[in-house]
Amino acid sequence: MQKLSTRHLLGIKDLTPNDIELIMATAREFKEVINRPIKKVPSLRDVTIANVFFENSTRTRLSFELAEKRLSADTLNFSASGSSVKKGETLLDTVNNILAMKVDMIVMRHASPGAPHFLSKHISANIVNAGDGTHEHPTQALLDSFSMREKLGGDLTGKKIAIIGDILHSRVALSNIFALKKQGAEVTLCGPSTLIPRYVTDLGVKVSHDVKKTLAWCDVANVLRIQLERQQIKYFPSLREYSLYFGINKKMLDDLNKEIVIMHPGPINRGVELSSDAADSQHSIILDQVENGVAVRMAVLYLLAGQN
Amino acid sequence: MQKLSTRHLLGIKDLTPNDIELIMATAREFKEVINRPIKKVPSLRDVTIANVFFENSTRTRLSFELAEKRLSADTLNFSASGSSVKKGETLLDTVNNILAMKVDMIVMRHASPGAPHFLSKHISANIVNAGDGTHEHPTQALLDSFSMREKLGGDLTGKKIAIIGDILHSRVALSNIFALKKQGAEVTLCGPSTLIPRYVTDLGVKVSHDVKKTLAWCDVANVLRIQLERQQIKYFPSLREYSLYFGINKKMLDDLNKEIVIMHPGPINRGVELSSDAADSQHSIILDQVENGVAVRMAVLYLLAGQN
Amino acid sequence: MQKLSTRHLLGIKDLTPNDIELIMATAREFKEVINRPIKKVPSLRDVTIANVFFENSTRTRLSFELAEKRLSADTLNFSASGSSVKKGETLLDTVNNILAMKVDMIVMRHASPGAPHFLSKHISANIVNAGDGTHEHPTQALLDSFSMREKLGGDLTGKKIAIIGDILHSRVALSNIFALKKQGAEVTLCGPSTLIPRYVTDLGVKVSHDVKKTLAWCDVANVLRIQLERQQIKYFPSLREYSLYFGINKKMLDDLNKEIVIMHPGPINRGVELSSDAADSQHSIILDQVENGVAVRMAVLYLLAGQN
Repeated sequence: MQKLSTRHLLGIKDLTPNDIELIMATAREFKEVINRPIKKVPSLRDVTIANVFFENSTRTRLSFELAEKRLSADTLNFSASGSSVKKGETLLDTVNNILAMKVDMIVMRHASPGAPHFLSKHISANIVNAGDGTHEHPTQALLDSFSMREKLGGDLTGKKIAIIGDILHSRVALSNIFALKKQGAEVTLCGPSTLIPRYVTDLGVKVSHDVKKTLAWCDVANVLRIQLERQQIKYFPSLREYSLYFGINKKMLDDLNKEIVIMHPGPINRGVELSSDAADSQHSIILDQVENGVAVRMAVLYLLAGQN
Repeated sequence: MQKLSTRHLLGIKDLTPNDIELIMATAREFKEVINRPIKKVPSLRDVTIANVFFENSTRTRLSFELAEKRLSADTLNFSASGSSVKKGETLLDTVNNILAMKVDMIVMRHASPGAPHFLSKHISANIVNAGDGTHEHPTQALLDSFSMREKLGGDLTGKKIAIIGDILHSRVALSNIFALKKQGAEVTLCGPSTLIPRYVTDLGVKVSHDVKKTLAWCDVANVLRIQLERQQIKYFPSLREYSLYFGINKKMLDDLNKEIVIMHPGPINRGVELSSDAADSQHSIILDQVENGVAVRMAVLYLLAGQN
Repeated sequence: MQKLSTRHLLGIKDLTPNDIELIMATAREFKEVINRPIKKVPSLRDVTIANVFFENSTRTRLSFELAEKRLSADTLNFSASGSSVKKGETLLDTVNNILAMKVDMIVMRHASPGAPHFLSKHISANIVNAGDGTHEHPTQALLDSFSMREKLGGDLTGKKIAIIGDILHSRVALSNIFALKKQGAEVTLCGPSTLIPRYVTDLGVKVSHDVKKTLAWCDVANVLRIQLERQQIKYFPSLREYSLYFGINKKMLDDLNKEIVIMHPGPINRGVELSSDAADSQHSIILDQVENGVAVRMAVLYLLAGQN
């Protein structure tokens, strides 16, 4: 059996192109599994996985939980609210306590960038980063790549991918950039200059502030959520201005007169970054992304469980 | 196998009398199952059910969850607190995301009347309404009817059923009225005039404001909870006045010198609508209602899962 | 098969020395089980256990939940937040409702001392007290004794055990005192006089206010958490003073020039009652306690499930 080069999934940054190919191929197999009438496989029977969410999450937690159940793993759910975290316990003590109960893998979301990387140096369980602050969200980028490949029908070499919106506050953006570059895609970031951090030019991507030109250029537009709840700087432009200059509607897409794929990690602010008619149009693969999320997470958990 | 006339349970209003008979007969079989040492059946193995509660609930959620486990279904729990609902996502987007993860059935509680009906027009999964605002709570009415039949030893044709209390704010009342009328029972609503909406006279029920006369008339008194938490109008009468004029105690029941069945959907405000000695008396079947709730919900889930 | 003298675990006070021996022996067997690759046993298949937590808890709830899963029990989780408890339902009504759903055992945490004892007089299910206010926390004391025996290599007869810290607000302290005395150990309580209640002298223990002398005397020091969140009296001394006079660091332990075992029920206030270097030193068996917690809880649930 092929193996990953790592025993944790902390970020896309650490993956090799081979790792990505292996995850994609494994996820394709699991997608077949979850479309059969019998959706479960016994692969991770007797593996105990703790979902440790220090930040609230719905879709990511449900997707991981379902992936774990489809793999027949035992699961434990830990959320920070109502936990000893509130009593001032350190991150390492919390996680060591969970591990002392004979937990094999940790799926973890944390508000601090680097929290899972810190943990990986101190604990023996496999760690999957389910989002660390504004840093990385690697399984989202993997499911995005999987969905692009599925729709475009091949790998991403030379494909033109735009990431549109609030790059600054998005962990989805950074993980996508790493994933897409490792797969040979061309990447353009598009958004207001206040929402695109300066360091991105070091990552080998182009920057645009013109959404129409960007749409005309790209094969796929991955439209990000305006992360109102994560913004610490005073926001500029306003939502109304953002929508006016960067919002995407169906007419804009139809006027392009070409094949274009619209993606969004959810939850959508309908009428802000995407109009309803665009989100629900034939260009959109937003719900495929959600379905593929379970298959990709099954692949990641399955591959990491074999790594010691 | 007999089938329901519907693929969702949105409300009792949509059920035929045959549907109700089928659910009652199926629930009787499941009640035997859950009283065996081995309480599980493999009926819904490989069916995934999401419990989507936009409003808090304890007893209803636990009852559904247990019904699902006894049927060997896979379950996912989603509650609005800490979810993307708080990030402004629409109901349809939330549910479509859950369904994209290959969920077969949705059990849903929502504060807005009609929310599950709206959803049923847009999604493919079977929907069970677990309470939509002050509108319907169909599984509660079904378990109430099941418990009445069990206690009275037969069907409800010609039986005299009183529903006593806050009709205006109760989804239990409306679902019970529909269920009882479809089963041929006579129904009297009893409560202060401020808590009985005018439209009920169109439903073929009588109205009384005299609790003693109502108790003297009926075979079964289904006593509702004073829904303090759901009242948006200024409350009249006060709790103390309510208790004085409409509260039921054991002496009142014993003085009737007849068989009478006391029911309550819970949680009881002891000392308000029911005194403790009445709630715990030989007339009360309140805990049978809870037990029957699991069997009735197993029946509903089992029958709907066979409908496409 | 040997049996416990009780059908509930309400407190250590009610256990006989034989009960404690039986739990220890059974837990040793389950510790072997959870260290095998296949960590599950079918012992409690078809037993339904409700975890009813009226107070927040992380580690205790997770530990019980895992113990239940390893025993193949069906579990239901009930927490007070968002429940009918908030609607004013009585404790007995809440629990009777859960039991009416055919639940066999209740694991319960409650803020009021004696709450599980009250319940045990009114319901038929087996009850495990998972902490009742500042009163008892019996499974913590049992896992503490198990961990001491495992480390010291034998039973606790004549062993010198110190319990250091906030005795007044600790349910762990009282349960440990009962457990240790029943096993023939000598017990010294050590802490500031404001945090040691007067009645402890009736329990056959010594009291010290000198942590250095206490450490020099004992084989095992069970260091308690300063329960800031449970203190209703004005706190004296301050945390800084407490740490200065009663805090334990690694140098103090090394200077003793003897074998000493350091325990803590968690979560640790690092730098208050224990320095980080002491908590993480070779003297510490804090994470063993957590691991043993699952085995001890499996033993308790397994033994009680056989008692009617």
